[in-house]
Amino acid sequence: MPTPKLGVCYYPEHWPEARWALDARMMRAAGLSLVRIGEFAWSRLEPRPGEFDFGWLDRAIATLGEAGLGIVLGTPTATPPRWMLERHPDMLAVDAEGRPRKFGSRRHYCFAHEGYRAEAARIAGLLGERYGRNPHVVAWQIDNEYGCHDTVVSYSDAAARGFRRWLAARYGDVSRLDEAWGNVFWSMEYTAFEEIDPPNLTVTEANPAHTLDYRRFLSDAVVAFNAAQVAALRPHTDAPLSHNYMGRILSFDHFAVGRDLEIATWDSYPLGFLEDRSDQGEDWRRRFARQGDPDFQAFHHDLYRAVGKGRWWVMEQQPGPVNWAPHNPAPLPGMVALWTWEAIAHGAEAVCYFRWRQVPFAQEQMHAGLLRPDAAPAPGLAEARAVADALDDLPETGTAPVGLVVDYQASWVWETERQGAECDYFRLVFDVYRALRCAGLSVDILPPTTRDLSAHALVLAPGLAIWPEPLREALAAHDGIAIAGPRTGAKTDAFRIPEALPPQMPGVDARVTRIETLRDDCPVALAEGGAFRFWREFVEGDAPVLEACADGEPALVGTRERAYLAGWPDDIALDRIVRRAAGAAGLATLALPDGLRVRDRGSVRFVMNYSAEPVSLDGVVPGATGTLPPAGTLRLPRA
Amino acid sequence: MPTPKLGVCYYPEHWPEARWALDARMMRAAGLSLVRIGEFAWSRLEPRPGEFDFGWLDRAIATLGEAGLGIVLGTPTATPPRWMLERHPDMLAVDAEGRPRKFGSRRHYCFAHEGYRAEAARIAGLLGERYGRNPHVVAWQIDNEYGCHDTVVSYSDAAARGFRRWLAARYGDVSRLDEAWGNVFWSMEYTAFEEIDPPNLTVTEANPAHTLDYRRFLSDAVVAFNAAQVAALRPHTDAPLSHNYMGRILSFDHFAVGRDLEIATWDSYPLGFLEDRSDQGEDWRRRFARQGDPDFQAFHHDLYRAVGKGRWWVMEQQPGPVNWAPHNPAPLPGMVALWTWEAIAHGAEAVCYFRWRQVPFAQEQMHAGLLRPDAAPAPGLAEARAVADALDDLPETGTAPVGLVVDYQASWVWETERQGAECDYFRLVFDVYRALRCAGLSVDILPPTTRDLSAHALVLAPGLAIWPEPLREALAAHDGIAIAGPRTGAKTDAFRIPEALPPQMPGVDARVTRIETLRDDCPVALAEGGAFRFWREFVEGDAPVLEACADGEPALVGTRERAYLAGWPDDIALDRIVRRAAGAAGLATLALPDGLRVRDRGSVRFVMNYSAEPVSLDGVVPGATGTLPPAGTLRLPRA
Amino acid sequence: MPTPKLGVCYYPEHWPEARWALDARMMRAAGLSLVRIGEFAWSRLEPRPGEFDFGWLDRAIATLGEAGLGIVLGTPTATPPRWMLERHPDMLAVDAEGRPRKFGSRRHYCFAHEGYRAEAARIAGLLGERYGRNPHVVAWQIDNEYGCHDTVVSYSDAAARGFRRWLAARYGDVSRLDEAWGNVFWSMEYTAFEEIDPPNLTVTEANPAHTLDYRRFLSDAVVAFNAAQVAALRPHTDAPLSHNYMGRILSFDHFAVGRDLEIATWDSYPLGFLEDRSDQGEDWRRRFARQGDPDFQAFHHDLYRAVGKGRWWVMEQQPGPVNWAPHNPAPLPGMVALWTWEAIAHGAEAVCYFRWRQVPFAQEQMHAGLLRPDAAPAPGLAEARAVADALDDLPETGTAPVGLVVDYQASWVWETERQGAECDYFRLVFDVYRALRCAGLSVDILPPTTRDLSAHALVLAPGLAIWPEPLREALAAHDGIAIAGPRTGAKTDAFRIPEALPPQMPGVDARVTRIETLRDDCPVALAEGGAFRFWREFVEGDAPVLEACADGEPALVGTRERAYLAGWPDDIALDRIVRRAAGAAGLATLALPDGLRVRDRGSVRFVMNYSAEPVSLDGVVPGATGTLPPAGTLRLPRA
Repeated sequence: MPTPKLGVCYYPEHWPEARWALDARMMRAAGLSLVRIGEFAWSRLEPRPGEFDFGWLDRAIATLGEAGLGIVLGTPTATPPRWMLERHPDMLAVDAEGRPRKFGSRRHYCFAHEGYRAEAARIAGLLGERYGRNPHVVAWQIDNEYGCHDTVVSYSDAAARGFRRWLAARYGDVSRLDEAWGNVFWSMEYTAFEEIDPPNLTVTEANPAHTLDYRRFLSDAVVAFNAAQVAALRPHTDAPLSHNYMGRILSFDHFAVGRDLEIATWDSYPLGFLEDRSDQGEDWRRRFARQGDPDFQAFHHDLYRAVGKGRWWVMEQQPGPVNWAPHNPAPLPGMVALWTWEAIAHGAEAVCYFRWRQVPFAQEQMHAGLLRPDAAPAPGLAEARAVADALDDLPETGTAPVGLVVDYQASWVWETERQGAECDYFRLVFDVYRALRCAGLSVDILPPTTRDLSAHALVLAPGLAIWPEPLREALAAHDGIAIAGPRTGAKTDAFRIPEALPPQMPGVDARVTRIETLRDDCPVALAEGGAFRFWREFVEGDAPVLEACADGEPALVGTRERAYLAGWPDDIALDRIVRRAAGAAGLATLALPDGLRVRDRGSVRFVMNYSAEPVSLDGVVPGATGTLPPAGTLRLPRA
Repeated sequence: MPTPKLGVCYYPEHWPEARWALDARMMRAAGLSLVRIGEFAWSRLEPRPGEFDFGWLDRAIATLGEAGLGIVLGTPTATPPRWMLERHPDMLAVDAEGRPRKFGSRRHYCFAHEGYRAEAARIAGLLGERYGRNPHVVAWQIDNEYGCHDTVVSYSDAAARGFRRWLAARYGDVSRLDEAWGNVFWSMEYTAFEEIDPPNLTVTEANPAHTLDYRRFLSDAVVAFNAAQVAALRPHTDAPLSHNYMGRILSFDHFAVGRDLEIATWDSYPLGFLEDRSDQGEDWRRRFARQGDPDFQAFHHDLYRAVGKGRWWVMEQQPGPVNWAPHNPAPLPGMVALWTWEAIAHGAEAVCYFRWRQVPFAQEQMHAGLLRPDAAPAPGLAEARAVADALDDLPETGTAPVGLVVDYQASWVWETERQGAECDYFRLVFDVYRALRCAGLSVDILPPTTRDLSAHALVLAPGLAIWPEPLREALAAHDGIAIAGPRTGAKTDAFRIPEALPPQMPGVDARVTRIETLRDDCPVALAEGGAFRFWREFVEGDAPVLEACADGEPALVGTRERAYLAGWPDDIALDRIVRRAAGAAGLATLALPDGLRVRDRGSVRFVMNYSAEPVSLDGVVPGATGTLPPAGTLRLPRA
Repeated sequence: MPTPKLGVCYYPEHWPEARWALDARMMRAAGLSLVRIGEFAWSRLEPRPGEFDFGWLDRAIATLGEAGLGIVLGTPTATPPRWMLERHPDMLAVDAEGRPRKFGSRRHYCFAHEGYRAEAARIAGLLGERYGRNPHVVAWQIDNEYGCHDTVVSYSDAAARGFRRWLAARYGDVSRLDEAWGNVFWSMEYTAFEEIDPPNLTVTEANPAHTLDYRRFLSDAVVAFNAAQVAALRPHTDAPLSHNYMGRILSFDHFAVGRDLEIATWDSYPLGFLEDRSDQGEDWRRRFARQGDPDFQAFHHDLYRAVGKGRWWVMEQQPGPVNWAPHNPAPLPGMVALWTWEAIAHGAEAVCYFRWRQVPFAQEQMHAGLLRPDAAPAPGLAEARAVADALDDLPETGTAPVGLVVDYQASWVWETERQGAECDYFRLVFDVYRALRCAGLSVDILPPTTRDLSAHALVLAPGLAIWPEPLREALAAHDGIAIAGPRTGAKTDAFRIPEALPPQMPGVDARVTRIETLRDDCPVALAEGGAFRFWREFVEGDAPVLEACADGEPALVGTRERAYLAGWPDDIALDRIVRRAAGAAGLATLALPDGLRVRDRGSVRFVMNYSAEPVSLDGVVPGATGTLPPAGTLRLPRA
């Protein structure tokens, strides 16, 4: 694998043309070799419908490219110009309360609007025609941050029409839909697809089957929107196509979008995400306020490596304070470098910082760049430079010993039928991920379509509410260690409880006869310590009991190789379960002090200190000695 | 009184016809003798307008009836089919923010919509015609859970039109309305009824007189909706008519609906209600998470006995975890039986469980039944069976020594003019009820129309913000002990402060000159211990001071027989006040340990342990010895 | 300066005409000499469009005036009658979610609606014609409480149209607007002013330049609305014109409105404001629940003295419990007098109580008056009488030694780009004000248009996010002590970061290179004690460092005379900074115990005890000895 690259996001349209060449030289001097441009520039490329101005972009690409930078060119479809609304007045997304989400910022479109989808393909095709063979263009980015600002779930008329077509295609006859959804329940039966609305503003909750199908339809709309641009670009270019995903967005199936693209990238904002998207308590958030959650980025690195089928980048790396979280502190010195190394440890081909220079106007003027608004270096620049200086060839990322299955549809099921206030699929999966990482284990995230698990000695599949049939078969065939549950196989594809009861896990004779959800202050103790919290199942069957609750009910059943977990373990229980399973799989675990994390890449082990205190490595990480300072990173040969 | 019966809610339309007979036999084997059916089945009875299919219902009634089950037949008007919206596009309720509450779940109608009201009467009449003389049909249920999902308060155009007619009928001339409401206050005067809108979306709060009249109109709409079905059914049947009310729904006058029906029933979900509808703090909710509030069901049993004029059932009894509260734990083993006994102790003629078999599809698939989805017994079944086995003849319920007045209109006054954030009528009344119950006293709830209090040695009338004139006279004539207040008589019928100041309580020379509301951390201490919280009045007059605040202001004034309470007592103060009044009334009180409760039914005393710990009865309940286990119930002859 | 006057708000239209004369005599007997009337009486003055009834008002003015009361006559434009909506159906304000704010309370108009603006001027002119030379009318009040109930920010069509015109006038060409706002950022460029909407319901935040211009436009609409009535009244009267502002309303530029009026008045509700509008924690709110925040009224007294260019009143003084806060306790005995004295200490020409008699109907029936609803004296009356008895000539208010700059536009900037959840301009300014007052310093509030600071030995200008050019020059010329920051000059007039970086403070060579915002539990310690909280800046430049953070970063830079503060100090740090600066300015400070406050008026010092405990004055206030009881007030000659 070639040496990882560093890059940066740049907006030539924001700065005088005379400045471009200097900026390009400074980028190169900082050790950057990639620059992403163009993804918000539609109003400058097509100021009026059909009236184009590509000249400035030609020159920007030439200037940057000739300075030695590889260009990542974005399609500008996340920011349709104001005139687009004259052509498609009904293109706006509509929120759950029925209000159109208006022009004036970005992402003001409904994925299901076919007219806008065609416009997006049109501009993508024009860019492809013009720049598809440009030697400076090394990759493409389609649109920007699908789903950001909660833009997948829309209740527009366009979405309603699309949903009805989607349903008609899926069910053929509306009576089959009625049967599948169980619409007899509250006389909700339909006599024509035209009668079916999106499931918002109902008096009480809509039929969960209705909601789940709507979520599937919306996800499919994202896939189709992306595919339309892929189809428009592909004839014109051999450069890889990509999209930059976000953190903790579960509203569409990223694996499905990823199948149409060569590279997955994502936008990594550790401090913003800790403030804005964490389930952890106040004390945790205080302790990591300047470092970010030590596992959140790692999780997404592994996730998007899977989405990208091995090829992935960080497209936007936080370089200093951001502007959009409830609080926006400065990173602890060294964290920009640490975050970059963490990405590289997980196999990133490239890490690009967002953005080159802090813009002094409009919405993100308080978002740091590598340069300050006055073009002087901001603190992040030196850290990027330091990483660039230290970069060299690294081993292939290879396969991690642990596989963790992540399934977007499962998240929709949990959201649709939460049953307990805290019961969130991402939270569960991330709890498991954190336990693995705290044990020093490197993880591969596996899509639900995985058919072969043989590469992973230990596989975990928490919360997989609807079985993907191939995965169930793969689990049955797996000769490593596997743990599924809770809530695995809880629903059929039609959002019904399976007749034979869940989990229907191969090799585990267990039936979940009922479940309960728990207040945070009402955990159910486990006999060996720790507890189930939030979610707990009652299990029957002949499967041996591996762990029990203090009240005698089974907690973990099955065999050492194939076990079903009947609840949501707290940190203490998860730690025990994960270490025991790793031991059974022949994997060594570490006892890492607070804030210390490791990630293996081939023969290299990266050690990172996310705490704000120095940490002694003696006796902690084999082969390492001495003290790692706050925000410190270390590379070791793996023992 | 005959032996109480047990029953269950069943949905033949959800299951294969071939299964019905087996289910019926199993019900009988479980000791059940009643089955409620049909209340959500409109789309199966009339799949298209005017196109009927009664055959399946004929067969279901026959199958169940022939197995020995008495049928409670529901009118399906809580779930109008989708085609109804084509006929009445404006029938939907509209929420306070002006959004129609759409099809896709249930209760999607505005009570004030006359077109839909006629449709409801039409289907009720057709069912009456067909099944009114069916020997298996032992009772009728009209609609389902009026007011559930906040469906009484609607701001639809139909409601606006109805409100104007209602106002015209009430006031005759709009100038009388202006005068009554005091519309001069902010130039709010009208010149025609047509100018008057529902009181939502005003810039700041609407005139409280406007709001109160709207609440009265909405309540009347519920009464009229119900009465239309009563009128349609009555000619066809001699079986009693009922409706199943819910817990802590104050949005319509249940007594007024109840006057048109023979039986009141209600749906008792102790764990859901604790999570969803309790004012108690976190610690209380944790302690009773698996038992439910020990007084909430008891209160509603007594309430609906009054609404039913003595005849009442539990129509839906929680049998296991539900699906709709923020957390849905499993009941402590034994609680399903305890809940059933508590209902019987309060005089229930029948207790029906909801539902027979957990349905594996649609909205309530996570709601437990007596059977699991796979038709195996769920834990509740054995508890129901155990109650059935122990049932025998019980004495008449008789009259309780304590009367507690409950008035729905008072709740609307408190809601309309809250004055302090925590000041809620139900909370106040329920605080008083809990104090009575903790003292071991059995309670009759009295409607505000009560004209004779002589049956009750002690009468309490807290928070009765508008005096019902007959009750005021009854209080004057009462020769037992009576306590009213706080806020009694605070408003005239037109929502004005009475000219002579409140409370205008017969026999108590006291005037409330002003009131204040209090932060929860700013209680006003009482001289004898405890405090007023939330609400406190300043009283003048010649009435003797029975209790004073620590600052010297009167707290309880009047005589031993007739007293006015000038604030909202905390638990300590309420306990003292209630015990002292009971003593004056010649009633013995008990010192019950935490979670223990008693209820007397004629010559029988029921003792119930709501705590999760065993409780010693020695010296606690006269005649009882030993220990009552968690969820334990005991029957004693009354001392 | 003449002896301050006391007065009261009265509504003759609420009471029988036969009662007026008695009320007037009672007012006089209570020591009151002013009465405000008429401001909500439009429906009685013009019951139908063009149909007038001034007779009752003629008689009311005569009755009150002949009793010796000076009349303050209000224009009734805060309460347009119902018929106005027939003439102007689109006059309602529209909230941020797009819902019209309906008739049924008050303030149901959009300031930007030109039709209603003309109607308001029309009724004002008619009143002016009729009463402008009436000898009893000593002053006018225009409308009532602009901005109360959040009524400035409206998204109506009328506002949208007005905004476009306002923008066209400001920018001339839309391309200049695009350039100024930086609309290139997300392809937000416009090609015509007609394309521009108000900045609500955008997918994510709108361009802050867009939002700020909208806020300016809305504020200008208030100014224009007021000016239209001024223009209508002015030809008819020589009596001073006033408006009664509210507490903590920042949505329009009060200084700009004030420029068109002779007197500023405000409505002082200490207990309501503490409950409803305080940033202080629960413990503080509990301790002052019956006294109100000890600094909130003082701040507004000083603010409105500035808005009134020296002439100001309290138009509505809370006399007992109010009805509109989350909790509405009674004031501690003595507080009504203390609040009155506090106002007089700050130079109030008059203090009027709201209201004379508690009204027994409509929205404010639970709002105390000086009389109870039954016309008996309420507790406030005696306290007002006691103040009246003690009133005599007082020295001129004079100039306070400390100047504190307050700028409404700065508040809009902070709201538009909050950056940290707690970062609110009022909170910052009020923190500074409290620190000054706790040090015993009297304060003048200075508008941002101030051009000469020479009267103030110490000037503070916190949070002035956009420099008013004349003030910057005045600061440069000032030969006293001045401290600005944080966030001073952070933005240009076009809401951009200045090219040369903030603060561009004359005489201080410092550049804010970046900022961060902080969780409440993540303060940044200062080397000398205390900390920065919420907001912290990083500063470069040659300015000497006067205080540093514990991490070595500059915290206060510049010289003793001219310093820039690079963060939001907590109470400990603010106390030190303020006392040190006062010392440098030659001002003596006091060490006041909890709840004690002083205010100097010329040669007289007022001492007030806001705590609920007696406070010893020995050694605390020079020249004072003994103990001040709770709610006690003392007048001393200044040392």
